Amino acid sequence: VKLWGGRFEESVTDAVENFTESISFDKVLYKHDIMGSRAHASMLAHQGLISEKDRDSILRGLDEVERQIEAGEFVWRTDREDVHMNIEAALTDIVGEPAKKLHTARSRNDQVSTDFRLWCRDNIDIIVACIRRLQVSLLKLAMRNEGLIVPGYTHLQRAQPVLLQHLLLAYVEQFERDVGRLLDCKVRMNFCPLGACALAGTGLPIDRFMTSEALGFTAPLRNSIDAVSDRDFVLEFLSANSIMATHLSRLGEEWVLWASEEFGFLIPSDSVSTGSSIMPQKKNPDPMELVRGKSARVIGDLVSLLVLCKGLPHAYNRDLQEDKEPVFDSVKTIIGMLEVSTEFAQNITFNQQKIQKALPAGHLDATTLADYLVKKGVPFRTSHDIVGRAVAMCVSINCQLQDLSIGELQNISPAFDEDVYEFLGVENAVKKFSSYGSTGSDCVASQLDYWTAKLDINRET
Amino acid sequence: VKLWGGRFEESVTDAVENFTESISFDKVLYKHDIMGSRAHASMLAHQGLISEKDRDSILRGLDEVERQIEAGEFVWRTDREDVHMNIEAALTDIVGEPAKKLHTARSRNDQVSTDFRLWCRDNIDIIVACIRRLQVSLLKLAMRNEGLIVPGYTHLQRAQPVLLQHLLLAYVEQFERDVGRLLDCKVRMNFCPLGACALAGTGLPIDRFMTSEALGFTAPLRNSIDAVSDRDFVLEFLSANSIMATHLSRLGEEWVLWASEEFGFLIPSDSVSTGSSIMPQKKNPDPMELVRGKSARVIGDLVSLLVLCKGLPHAYNRDLQEDKEPVFDSVKTIIGMLEVSTEFAQNITFNQQKIQKALPAGHLDATTLADYLVKKGVPFRTSHDIVGRAVAMCVSINCQLQDLSIGELQNISPAFDEDVYEFLGVENAVKKFSSYGSTGSDCVASQLDYWTAKLDINRET
Amino acid sequence: VKLWGGRFEESVTDAVENFTESISFDKVLYKHDIMGSRAHASMLAHQGLISEKDRDSILRGLDEVERQIEAGEFVWRTDREDVHMNIEAALTDIVGEPAKKLHTARSRNDQVSTDFRLWCRDNIDIIVACIRRLQVSLLKLAMRNEGLIVPGYTHLQRAQPVLLQHLLLAYVEQFERDVGRLLDCKVRMNFCPLGACALAGTGLPIDRFMTSEALGFTAPLRNSIDAVSDRDFVLEFLSANSIMATHLSRLGEEWVLWASEEFGFLIPSDSVSTGSSIMPQKKNPDPMELVRGKSARVIGDLVSLLVLCKGLPHAYNRDLQEDKEPVFDSVKTIIGMLEVSTEFAQNITFNQQKIQKALPAGHLDATTLADYLVKKGVPFRTSHDIVGRAVAMCVSINCQLQDLSIGELQNISPAFDEDVYEFLGVENAVKKFSSYGSTGSDCVASQLDYWTAKLDINRET
Amino acid sequence: VKLWGGRFEESVTDAVENFTESISFDKVLYKHDIMGSRAHASMLAHQGLISEKDRDSILRGLDEVERQIEAGEFVWRTDREDVHMNIEAALTDIVGEPAKKLHTARSRNDQVSTDFRLWCRDNIDIIVACIRRLQVSLLKLAMRNEGLIVPGYTHLQRAQPVLLQHLLLAYVEQFERDVGRLLDCKVRMNFCPLGACALAGTGLPIDRFMTSEALGFTAPLRNSIDAVSDRDFVLEFLSANSIMATHLSRLGEEWVLWASEEFGFLIPSDSVSTGSSIMPQKKNPDPMELVRGKSARVIGDLVSLLVLCKGLPHAYNRDLQEDKEPVFDSVKTIIGMLEVSTEFAQNITFNQQKIQKALPAGHLDATTLADYLVKKGVPFRTSHDIVGRAVAMCVSINCQLQDLSIGELQNISPAFDEDVYEFLGVENAVKKFSSYGSTGSDCVASQLDYWTAKLDINRET
Repeated sequence: VKLWGGRFEESVTDAVENFTESISFDKVLYKHDIMGSRAHASMLAHQGLISEKDRDSILRGLDEVERQIEAGEFVWRTDREDVHMNIEAALTDIVGEPAKKLHTARSRNDQVSTDFRLWCRDNIDIIVACIRRLQVSLLKLAMRNEGLIVPGYTHLQRAQPVLLQHLLLAYVEQFERDVGRLLDCKVRMNFCPLGACALAGTGLPIDRFMTSEALGFTAPLRNSIDAVSDRDFVLEFLSANSIMATHLSRLGEEWVLWASEEFGFLIPSDSVSTGSSIMPQKKNPDPMELVRGKSARVIGDLVSLLVLCKGLPHAYNRDLQEDKEPVFDSVKTIIGMLEVSTEFAQNITFNQQKIQKALPAGHLDATTLADYLVKKGVPFRTSHDIVGRAVAMCVSINCQLQDLSIGELQNISPAFDEDVYEFLGVENAVKKFSSYGSTGSDCVASQLDYWTAKLDINRET
Repeated sequence: VKLWGGRFEESVTDAVENFTESISFDKVLYKHDIMGSRAHASMLAHQGLISEKDRDSILRGLDEVERQIEAGEFVWRTDREDVHMNIEAALTDIVGEPAKKLHTARSRNDQVSTDFRLWCRDNIDIIVACIRRLQVSLLKLAMRNEGLIVPGYTHLQRAQPVLLQHLLLAYVEQFERDVGRLLDCKVRMNFCPLGACALAGTGLPIDRFMTSEALGFTAPLRNSIDAVSDRDFVLEFLSANSIMATHLSRLGEEWVLWASEEFGFLIPSDSVSTGSSIMPQKKNPDPMELVRGKSARVIGDLVSLLVLCKGLPHAYNRDLQEDKEPVFDSVKTIIGMLEVSTEFAQNITFNQQKIQKALPAGHLDATTLADYLVKKGVPFRTSHDIVGRAVAMCVSINCQLQDLSIGELQNISPAFDEDVYEFLGVENAVKKFSSYGSTGSDCVASQLDYWTAKLDINRET
Repeated sequence: VKLWGGRFEESVTDAVENFTESISFDKVLYKHDIMGSRAHASMLAHQGLISEKDRDSILRGLDEVERQIEAGEFVWRTDREDVHMNIEAALTDIVGEPAKKLHTARSRNDQVSTDFRLWCRDNIDIIVACIRRLQVSLLKLAMRNEGLIVPGYTHLQRAQPVLLQHLLLAYVEQFERDVGRLLDCKVRMNFCPLGACALAGTGLPIDRFMTSEALGFTAPLRNSIDAVSDRDFVLEFLSANSIMATHLSRLGEEWVLWASEEFGFLIPSDSVSTGSSIMPQKKNPDPMELVRGKSARVIGDLVSLLVLCKGLPHAYNRDLQEDKEPVFDSVKTIIGMLEVSTEFAQNITFNQQKIQKALPAGHLDATTLADYLVKKGVPFRTSHDIVGRAVAMCVSINCQLQDLSIGELQNISPAFDEDVYEFLGVENAVKKFSSYGSTGSDCVASQLDYWTAKLDINRET
Repeated sequence: VKLWGGRFEESVTDAVENFTESISFDKVLYKHDIMGSRAHASMLAHQGLISEKDRDSILRGLDEVERQIEAGEFVWRTDREDVHMNIEAALTDIVGEPAKKLHTARSRNDQVSTDFRLWCRDNIDIIVACIRRLQVSLLKLAMRNEGLIVPGYTHLQRAQPVLLQHLLLAYVEQFERDVGRLLDCKVRMNFCPLGACALAGTGLPIDRFMTSEALGFTAPLRNSIDAVSDRDFVLEFLSANSIMATHLSRLGEEWVLWASEEFGFLIPSDSVSTGSSIMPQKKNPDPMELVRGKSARVIGDLVSLLVLCKGLPHAYNRDLQEDKEPVFDSVKTIIGMLEVSTEFAQNITFNQQKIQKALPAGHLDATTLADYLVKKGVPFRTSHDIVGRAVAMCVSINCQLQDLSIGELQNISPAFDEDVYEFLGVENAVKKFSSYGSTGSDCVASQLDYWTAKLDINRET
């Protein structure tokens, strides 16, 4: 019979039991649930609400429950609804009467919010560590490809030449902000709901500061109704994951493109490729396709949670039980995406020959040429127009800007001088970049130094 | 080693294998995968592409695979990636060489689209059956509460009196359109991709009409690229589920409201209620809260799938592997929501006494009174204004419209006559409704008849 | 003062008025609102609820209102809240007393649902016409490129050769299902709410069948509460748009890819390209990028509407006012996407030379070769493995399958014969396809005939 | 002709122009665009890239453009595409040649990212100010209702008594975290993209630190590709808005519930209520319904933006033009929601009489009673069960816990003593709360002091 059964005469039907249970998924919270119970029991004893002997029985019993769970001996029961009831009931089976005192000055409402915050806190640390590993992989990939120039794109059209290192560092920057968002989220969520009880607090002389400190929280939450009813901490967590997922999806898209026959810039090793059941020649970059694809479920998880929270009155509503699976799924997915991206980064090579051969196409030096004219005193708008006409000429006779003779150039504008050829061609063009944050090789080298130091990488490796 | 391993020298890493596998979830397709293989093998034999002996071996082997799966003896292997490869490889283990011929003129691309359509088709039928049961429950609930008048709300403010039956039938109408959407979706998805192979069809002399017919499809899909790359059939399915989920969420909200102390209109039995771990008096309508809450994940699943499909080039991309879990989750969730709503409907009673006692409040007869004046020749806008003033008087002296004397009424407008009292009071007001589709008792009775016939219910029950 | 002001002593504050007004956006419904009022007035007169003279005044006044609006002379007033009140109040200004009778047996609740359905119905027709034009453009594009072979992709890796026509027809198929969804939606929404009044119907002797027929609806809705409170008809509409938007986003992605320097398959004319403010050489396929990007807002609009409807109790809630802007935005956006895609299709050429030159890469004939071995009696799995090894050899010595000598091939498998060279090379490979729905040229030709007839295109054009 | 027209021979078609223009919505950025141009021109002059005279012309011209815009005299032209081109072209019309130099070392890619960040930064400040006003209103509402006890709910079932002040402070807490999220977002977005140019930086000797400082940014962004291609700063902004919107939707739901006849706890003044066009007695809390409803579009805007960013390769893609409208809509909507909630809070009264009369129902003192038994040494689980049985007795004989005689209580458990009546009844129950963060009156008073000081409110007002 249910632990809350006092006033009930009838059991719930099987369909209702199966529909309302959460043990099938919330059991992953067991470690944090036990952690919370330990802190709670110690506080109850310290405050004289239970005896030291009872506390010791409870602590001993919790150790046993934890051992059973980790040994795979624990039997999770659907009729015990959730992780909290399963553990409390098992504790009662083991230590008897003292276990019945554990739920003093506590409700599942504050308990689950505590457990869930502890779980999220740990998983933010895990995700941040995964991001760090990906950043390191990207940085090492950059180091392995010093000096490699690739086309930079806008609108997927060739725009200007950039160092591959510069492009890889752009991702490192983006993931760094993802770290920032997760850490801000962690700071904001790290307050303790325990002791808020059902919604109103309690009249028993508990010490919420003691449990809060024992569990590593910054402080107890200030308002008991807020403590049990809000889920903004997971909404913020899944928002951070979703934003990161868009970053990862862009990496996925880019590497899938680059691995195509048409680009041909990137060659994944067999160990990160898969084949086809029908087409014998296929070698597909599936992991990065799935990184791109799985961004969808991370976003879907966030949407589920936002829809869930919309329009609920205070305080706790059973709807909130649905807060967990989207979070578990989002976290598992994002970790997989980060790990596989890291592994992919470690198992690709760039096809320097093909990249170099393809570089002349696309007039990547056109903007450098326009800047050249600016240096000669031509207003930028005019210089843009002049170079536009030069490009049009190249297109019509199918050549590159550097192939135009000085006479042809001067026909378009007298501002062109013999020194123009120092600015033409991709190699020259990329050398000219000098502004802070640009793809100029000095700028990129100093950014590499910055990240090498920050991520604590030994450049020799 | 992988079935597609010919040109590969290295196995994929464990991380990639775990990230890219789908067997952990797509194994639920086993029945439809085997069904498809049976049809395919028979067609291959009929076309002379395999011998009849080979076909028989394959069919026998497929029977054995199916038996093993259903007996729980089958070992699903992650290194065999997905349900298709697991079954084909197991088939090879069982029947040897002939199994290697099964994948003739077939790719996993067309195979999975076939399996998935078969699965969805079956599950649409299951969901429709669940809707029918819910409609029947609502109808029976209506029959059990003949004549019960409840306040009708707009803006959650009392508006006009309605028969409870009328309100319950509104849900029946909405679920009927949900059925319509699902059936339209089924018609549109019921075309056969098998034989589209990887994306381009095949040069082998297959007969796509034969497999299509054997599997109960309307016809083969006309375009092989379309056949393997589009997922609009599941987008439409999850859209239908999402719309239905909003309907169910509204039922959830309404019944949660009605079960509150403040409304007090609805009493769930203990068998569909749950209690609190801390508050001994609580009896909560959790199933309907969860019905409301779970609408969020059905919507989230749709969003995942839409995001997934956005911006993918033709034809098949590995991203599409992510199409399955949202569909499985949406279907499982919506079935649970329907079942539990049905069970809830069967286990509630309406508190007629409390409802009746509460009815006089809210001036539910005000609009009937305005219509009375219209019948007396007053333009509606004027009559609306007159009744507005009468209500204002009632509010100020804290009474109901029927409590105003004829003198007081005539002070407001001379159009009032002694017969006005036949229109005042909730009982009178509800009697006056007569328009088609209105809450008038004759109208409602005829709607009940309509649905009783349509849903084939014996009114005596 | 408000038209509903009878019982109110105070006006709403400016902030509330601005926040709650809908006239800034719902005025686009004016035509359908007037259409509904005409039908309603005629019915009221027919039923003797207003005089024929009043009806004539109303009809005349409505003509004048419509004229003013279309001449841009009408002054929309925020203090009159919405399109319904604006029109009714203006009508009163014009024709006086009779106008006050128009709102007899009608509420804004049933009125807005009627207007909105009429608007959606018209706009579905408009969208379907836009789809038809896009299909025609794609078909004509196909006709202009008869015989052009392009690489077919899976995982964005080259897979098998396909006729460009076949690929273009895949889109035509997808858009055809989009048409189907819209038409199903239209059938389901085409029922008339008028006469449901606030939520309960009315006691006045109206004829709902008369108004329903006058407005071209199939029938009046059967349940008045359902009629005013459900918005599933727009949820379904926006679902159909969202699914179509994913189709369009894929077209956008594909054409952006193909227009890149690396693919170089597709050349947009200047008239559908844009340049860069800084890079003089750029020519970007912006319209198709925006087609891809705008799919996001169509999906966002659907999400808004789903979230909106979640958890609302019956019947009408003011939240539902928020149903309009997402629909207006979705419709405007999808029409723009369709139109611009059509225009793009009319203004591109395929770079046959570059495509042809690129074709040999990617071993597109590998599967044809595997099928060749099947015809020779080799089980498919074995043949897949043999060809896989042949491809591996090609990769290692950097050649194509057709470059292997018969001796080299026979070294890999004795099943190879001299006739193998009839199956190798892209031209040969594409010729071999013969299955229904495949890219074989006969199959494609017959599909072209099918669509030419269905879309009523003159092939000579 | 387009400003980027050099290499183009043909204009874009009207349909493309209308589909790709952004001036209809991005003109709201004009102030920040001009601000950026001023800083850029000053820097160019300081670096010797333009003359001081040119700079002065440009600055004077920008003043004139700004004046024209704010005077409503400026003509926005669709053929000039966007706000940047419109302003630059107008500048050229005004000051001639010098204007052509303004776009030196600048692209629209870095320009729009700069403008957009400046705009968001300002609007975050505006939103935070709105939140502060709402918090103040809630706090003042709390002050006006000192000592008022209301039922606290879980599952919308009465749970425990709470002070209304405590409930209102729960919202204040939630909005405080919303402020935190916005401010974190602002810190993270406040880096300057200007000088990243198209994507690669420039070879001209610009000083990015100078423009960054002039515009109040923390520093220039470190990587030019990152600077022009990422939109995580708006994703984070809209995430914060969406989370806030769920908070506001809950306030909306709660106040709509409380304003119902059934609850009857809250009376909005006429100035924040609206009526019905058909039902003369209606007075609806529309503003709070719309606050609830508009949460949907804030969430929809976030989804649009997430879908938009999914799967885009580097660097800038035209899709990103679609980033603006969702942000403008989200900001406008959330400001409206905050303002109207503030105004609603200022215009409601709580119906103390009705609340008090309703309080005894629901056994709100049951948990206090269970805690009483704990104090007497009964283990909590046992005490929960005992009180559960006492409640069951009350339900069966339709009375409250305080109505049970000591004999009846002791029949259930001998642990009950005469002093039990000090714990029964709502008034007593609420007095007993004493834990930190609880609804005990001392705790609440100290929270009120905290917030009064923090929000700088004069308690006398």
